[in-house]
Amino acid sequence: MSNFAQKLKAYAELTIKVGVNIQPGQALIVHAPVEAREFVRMIVKEAYDTGASYVKVQWNDEQITRMQYDLASDEIFEKEPKWYAGEMTEMVEEGAAVLHILSENPDLLKGVNQNRIVAAQKARGKAMAKYRAYQQADKFSWCLIAVPSPEWAAKVFPDAPEEEQVSLLWEAIFKTVRIGEADPVAAWQKHITNLENKSKVLNEKKYKKLHYIAPGTDLTIELPEGHLWAQGDSINEKGHTFVANMPTEEVFTAPLKTGVNGTVSSTKPLSYGGNLIDKFSLTFENGRIIKVTAEEGLEALQNLVEIDEGSHYLGEVALVPHQSPISDTNILFYNTLFDENASNHLAIGSAYAFTLEGGKNMNQEQLAAAGLNTSLTHVDFMIGSAEMDIYGISADGTKEPIFLKGNWAF
Amino acid sequence: MSNFAQKLKAYAELTIKVGVNIQPGQALIVHAPVEAREFVRMIVKEAYDTGASYVKVQWNDEQITRMQYDLASDEIFEKEPKWYAGEMTEMVEEGAAVLHILSENPDLLKGVNQNRIVAAQKARGKAMAKYRAYQQADKFSWCLIAVPSPEWAAKVFPDAPEEEQVSLLWEAIFKTVRIGEADPVAAWQKHITNLENKSKVLNEKKYKKLHYIAPGTDLTIELPEGHLWAQGDSINEKGHTFVANMPTEEVFTAPLKTGVNGTVSSTKPLSYGGNLIDKFSLTFENGRIIKVTAEEGLEALQNLVEIDEGSHYLGEVALVPHQSPISDTNILFYNTLFDENASNHLAIGSAYAFTLEGGKNMNQEQLAAAGLNTSLTHVDFMIGSAEMDIYGISADGTKEPIFLKGNWAF
Repeated sequence: MSNFAQKLKAYAELTIKVGVNIQPGQALIVHAPVEAREFVRMIVKEAYDTGASYVKVQWNDEQITRMQYDLASDEIFEKEPKWYAGEMTEMVEEGAAVLHILSENPDLLKGVNQNRIVAAQKARGKAMAKYRAYQQADKFSWCLIAVPSPEWAAKVFPDAPEEEQVSLLWEAIFKTVRIGEADPVAAWQKHITNLENKSKVLNEKKYKKLHYIAPGTDLTIELPEGHLWAQGDSINEKGHTFVANMPTEEVFTAPLKTGVNGTVSSTKPLSYGGNLIDKFSLTFENGRIIKVTAEEGLEALQNLVEIDEGSHYLGEVALVPHQSPISDTNILFYNTLFDENASNHLAIGSAYAFTLEGGKNMNQEQLAAAGLNTSLTHVDFMIGSAEMDIYGISADGTKEPIFLKGNWAF
Repeated sequence: MSNFAQKLKAYAELTIKVGVNIQPGQALIVHAPVEAREFVRMIVKEAYDTGASYVKVQWNDEQITRMQYDLASDEIFEKEPKWYAGEMTEMVEEGAAVLHILSENPDLLKGVNQNRIVAAQKARGKAMAKYRAYQQADKFSWCLIAVPSPEWAAKVFPDAPEEEQVSLLWEAIFKTVRIGEADPVAAWQKHITNLENKSKVLNEKKYKKLHYIAPGTDLTIELPEGHLWAQGDSINEKGHTFVANMPTEEVFTAPLKTGVNGTVSSTKPLSYGGNLIDKFSLTFENGRIIKVTAEEGLEALQNLVEIDEGSHYLGEVALVPHQSPISDTNILFYNTLFDENASNHLAIGSAYAFTLEGGKNMNQEQLAAAGLNTSLTHVDFMIGSAEMDIYGISADGTKEPIFLKGNWAF
C-alpha cells in the first residue's frame, strides 16, 4: 500500500472507531459527495468490518445543488424535506450513528438568490427540528469530517500547480487529524484527555462571566447557572463516546442568552451557505445582536441573523488556543470545521443542551428557562487571534486570565 | 464540441424530450449510479432547460450495494424501504416523472446469498406496491435508459483492449437509440409510428391465441378478452406521451393468466439480480409454471419463480423482429433493456393494466378478474430467434402467421 493509501485507510479507521465509534449491530448513515465515492467505499467497508448492521449512504452533488438553486421553481425551496427528515429521525431513534463527509466548494453558492437559501434552510430546519434536538442532547453519535474537492483545494492553495492542490489539501487534513503520528487512535485519546483537563479546570472555576479583549473586540459574556464546559468527545445516551468534529481543538459551553454585551470582530472569513462573509463585527445588547457590519458578504450575514428569533442570539462560546496542529499549518481552510478549531469562536443560534447540568433531559422550554438559546440554526464564527486576552470573572468579582496573547493562561 | 460530446448531449436531450417528455413545471426523479455523475449533470441541466420545476437525484453505488449484501445484518433485507417508497409514491401522485439510468455490472451479485436478494425484493415490492400499480396503469411518465460502466463494458467486449471497452459500449448504445441519425428526435417519432402500425393490425385481428414454434419451444398463449397490443410509447393520465424504454423495438400485450400451455426455451442469457441465468426452459400448465430447467443459474431462476404466487405466471407477451438496430449490432448486452428488444420475449410476473381495455381505471381485483396476472415482480426473458414462427389463431380457429423465421410476416 502506498503511503497515501495507508493514510487514507488510517483516516477511515479513525473516523469509524473514534469519530462515530461504531458499535456491533449499530446502523450508520453517511452523508457524502459523489466525488468522494472511493473514500466513501473505504468508510463503508470499515464500518461493516467494525460490526455495523447496515450503512445507508445519502449522496449529494454540489453541481446539481447549484443547478437547483439557479434553475428550480421558487416553491421548491419552501417545501419541507419531510421524508428525508422522517427517515433520519427514525434511524437515530433506533440507534443509528450519523457521519457527514464534507467537501464543500466555499464559493458554491456565490451569487445565488439569498431568499432561496434562507427559505431552504428554514424548511430544512423545521423538518429536522426533532432530529436537531436529539443531536444537541447527544442522543446519538455523529461526526463531521472533510475530504478535498478540486474546487475547495484550489481556493485553499491558489498558488500551487493545479495538479498538486488536492494532494496538498489531503496532507493538510491528515495533519489536522493527527494522521502521520505512529498510532493515530492513541494520539487522539491523548489529545482528548488534554482537552478534558482544560474543561475540568473551567468547570471547577464556575466563572460568572467571560471578558474578551482584542483589537475591535470588547465583549462580556455571562454564563448561565449550571453551565458545563465540554470538549470534542461526547457520550451518547447508550454511554458510547464519540467525537463530533474531526479535527477538534475546542473547549466550549453555552452563554446566557440575554447576558452578552459589547462588540466582537471576526478574525477569519466565514464560509456560510456557499458565501464568504469577511471582516465583520457584531454588537450585542442584553444578548441580542443590535448591529452588524461586514466588509464582504453583509447581506449573507444579515440573512443569517434574520433566520428566526434565536439567530439574533449566541448559542456557543468556544476556547481554542492560537497554537494547535491546525493553526500551525498557517492555512486558511475556508471551512468552519477547520477554521473554528484554529481560533476562539462563538456561534450564532442554538445552544447544546449537554452544556448545561441536566440539560440532556430537559425539553426546549426548560432549556430556554435556564437561559439557553434555541434556534433553527447554529453557525460558528471565528474571533481568536494572537492578540486576544480572555478573563474569567467569578461571582465575587475576582478576575483572572484564561487566555493571554491567544493561548491558554493555565 | 467533440463528436462524442455531441452524441452525449443528443442522448440527454432524447431522454428528457422523448423518454420522460418533461413538461414545464413538472418534477423529475432520476435514479442514477454515482459513476455516471457527469452524464447525470447533463440530464439534470437538460431537464431544467426544458422547464422542470425540480430534479431529485437518487444516487446509488454498486460497490456499496454489494458490500451490503455481503456484510450487513440479515434483518436489514426484510425491512421495507417505507420512506423511500413514500416519497416516490407521493412525488408521482403530484405529477413527477421518473428516469432510471442503469449501468449494471451483470455479475454484481454473483455468489450473494439468494435469500437476501429474495427478501430485499419482497420488502421493496411490498413497499412499492402502490407506486408499481400507478406505473402499470401509466399514471405517470417514466423511462429506462442505460450508460456504460467499466465492469459492464468488459463483460460485453471481453476481447477488446480495456481502454476501449467503455467507448465501444457507448457507441453500441448510441446505435440502439438511433443517435447518429441526422435528427434523433425525428427518427424516434418515425420509429414509434412504425411500431404503432403493427399494434394497430394486431388490435384489429383480436387473436384468441398465439402459437409459438421454435427449437425447444412449442407454446400456446391465450389472450384475454379485451387485450390491447401496445408499443414503446405510452400516454400518462395527463395525456402526455412518454417512451418507457430506450431503446424499444417491441409490440406487446398481456396473456390470459391461466391460458398458457406448453414449453418455451430461452435464446439469450437473463441477467437477473446480478446473476446470470442461461439456457433455461419453462413448462406451463393452465398458465402456471410447473417445471423449470437451466444449464446455468437454476437456483436464481427458481427463486424468481418462488417470489410470490403471481411469479408462477406470465404477465407480458412481446413481439420483436429478429432484425432491428439492436439485433444488427450482434452484441449480447447482458442487460434486459437491450437484449429483450433484440428478441421476442415474455415476462414472468405482473401484467400492465394498460394492455387491457379500460384496464387503467381498474383496481387489482378487477384486473385479476379479467385474467391479468398480478405479482410483486416483472422480469422479461428472451425467447426469439431466426427460427421462430408465431401464428395467430382467431376465435373461429383461423390460423395465420404473425412471425416467420423471426421477423414480422406482415
